[in-house]
Amino acid sequence: MKIGLDIMGGDYAPKATVLGAIEAYKQLKEDQKLVLIGDRTLIDPILKDNNFNPDLFQIIHTTEVIGMGEHPTKAIVQKPNSSISLGFTLLKDGEIDSFASAGNTGAMLVGAMFSVKTVPGVIRPAIASIVPKAKGGCGILLDVGANADCKPDTLLQFGILGSIYAEHIYNIANAKVGLMNIGEEEEKGNLLTQASYTLMKETELINFIGNIEGRDLFNDKADVIVCDGFTGNVVLKLAESFYVLTLKKGMKDEFFDRFNYEQYGGSPILGVNAPVIIGHGISSPEAIKNMALLSRDMIETKIIDKFKIAFN
Amino acid sequence: MKIGLDIMGGDYAPKATVLGAIEAYKQLKEDQKLVLIGDRTLIDPILKDNNFNPDLFQIIHTTEVIGMGEHPTKAIVQKPNSSISLGFTLLKDGEIDSFASAGNTGAMLVGAMFSVKTVPGVIRPAIASIVPKAKGGCGILLDVGANADCKPDTLLQFGILGSIYAEHIYNIANAKVGLMNIGEEEEKGNLLTQASYTLMKETELINFIGNIEGRDLFNDKADVIVCDGFTGNVVLKLAESFYVLTLKKGMKDEFFDRFNYEQYGGSPILGVNAPVIIGHGISSPEAIKNMALLSRDMIETKIIDKFKIAFN
Repeated sequence: MKIGLDIMGGDYAPKATVLGAIEAYKQLKEDQKLVLIGDRTLIDPILKDNNFNPDLFQIIHTTEVIGMGEHPTKAIVQKPNSSISLGFTLLKDGEIDSFASAGNTGAMLVGAMFSVKTVPGVIRPAIASIVPKAKGGCGILLDVGANADCKPDTLLQFGILGSIYAEHIYNIANAKVGLMNIGEEEEKGNLLTQASYTLMKETELINFIGNIEGRDLFNDKADVIVCDGFTGNVVLKLAESFYVLTLKKGMKDEFFDRFNYEQYGGSPILGVNAPVIIGHGISSPEAIKNMALLSRDMIETKIIDKFKIAFN
Repeated sequence: MKIGLDIMGGDYAPKATVLGAIEAYKQLKEDQKLVLIGDRTLIDPILKDNNFNPDLFQIIHTTEVIGMGEHPTKAIVQKPNSSISLGFTLLKDGEIDSFASAGNTGAMLVGAMFSVKTVPGVIRPAIASIVPKAKGGCGILLDVGANADCKPDTLLQFGILGSIYAEHIYNIANAKVGLMNIGEEEEKGNLLTQASYTLMKETELINFIGNIEGRDLFNDKADVIVCDGFTGNVVLKLAESFYVLTLKKGMKDEFFDRFNYEQYGGSPILGVNAPVIIGHGISSPEAIKNMALLSRDMIETKIIDKFKIAFN
């Protein structure tokens, strides 16, 4: 197994990414190899400072980088040797089995769509995020930003993608799928959620439990929370800001601690033909380590095959 | 001035509403009269228990009530003598100067639209809610549920309505209007926010500061936060649930305390031809009192005239 990692992506790259790779190495088996994609002249000194043998990693050298503010599509096309573009080339060619980066989110999304492409049958891939549950465990929220405008059949598919992900990565069997809405009753909502409800209640592909509301994000009503990428992104950023406020105020609590993105290692793009994970821009070594471990889990569980079978 | 109050609306009515009216009375001047609309046989014993002279209120007797789960349009039509329907009849006829209820939100909205109607020029009224700011003060979030689907010109108008409300009720001059979006840059967002941005940046009717994100709800970037009613409702309920969690965990904090809806007395429907306020279903006497005081402020500041002038 070869786990691809963009060393140049993220606000604290390359130091945080290299340190994260070292930490991940300690938890990986011998046949689970980390492939670092980035500037070797920057990587080597960090490895040396940490007395880490460079031969334990495979290093793919490149000096080109896609910046956080660059236009995704243009950058992917114009910078074929950037760490992100190169990562996707390697992924497409089967040289690595997964690719993860804390860099430009849009470039990761565009790169995934252009290179490994969507799973046949999937209309639009979704970015999934983890939300901690107040009583323990976690839920899956998707889409959190890949698709600002969605159609009902896309939302239904998000429910399927999220259920498979919840089952294989978080051991949540028969995941309860809730539709984020502004009222519990079937007829409530905007045009999108009203039509989506009709589709979702009629399918046997998911365990649809109906509408949930903003207040249900952290309770146990739903394991998989489906929404358009606009709503999901606003919800995610709002929840994060609340967590940051509790931190600033010195409030320590086991539940709020579980909002820490570092534990989850990033957000997978679900519905593309390979494990692809987008890390938080501010990823620390701990976050990078967990991103590598999540990559491993997605490879090991053959989750892409599960998606392919479901949408066949 | 006559402040109309639905005594039958809310989970703890009529006790909480009558007690709230008594508390409000203590803070109102002699010419600021409370008009209680509800079942006199239920109101009188509560007043007696509290040694309160019933003559200090004007009481409009009715026994009919619109339940929380009833269909708004049907209920308004079929129950002309319900406290909500009666309240709007009195409001339309000028017998009261404002109407507030913690009852069926949909019926309040439909009742307002049918009776006093929208201010000429306003496409759709919006329900506005208060959000506490981390550094003190508050912001206005709208729409939080009146319009699940919105068009760009409607969002622009929400910015105008919110700015006028912020200026006259919360003394926020030249309010900074932010568009809730999923990225700061102009081109970010869904079709609605992209088109709304274009409209909002071109107008001089508001002080548009651009896009804000979910994480900016509690900071000082924007005083007035504009979004469609779907997004606003999800955001509001999520924020409330976070507040409830901090309460459950026994976290005491001045900022989180300001999430307590009781202080704000309800959410006004902005853009109709009279002050109309919808209270939280679980309204306590404190919330009802503040709803009456907010009604007074909306009458006293002649805010409806300000709306009429702006949209003339």
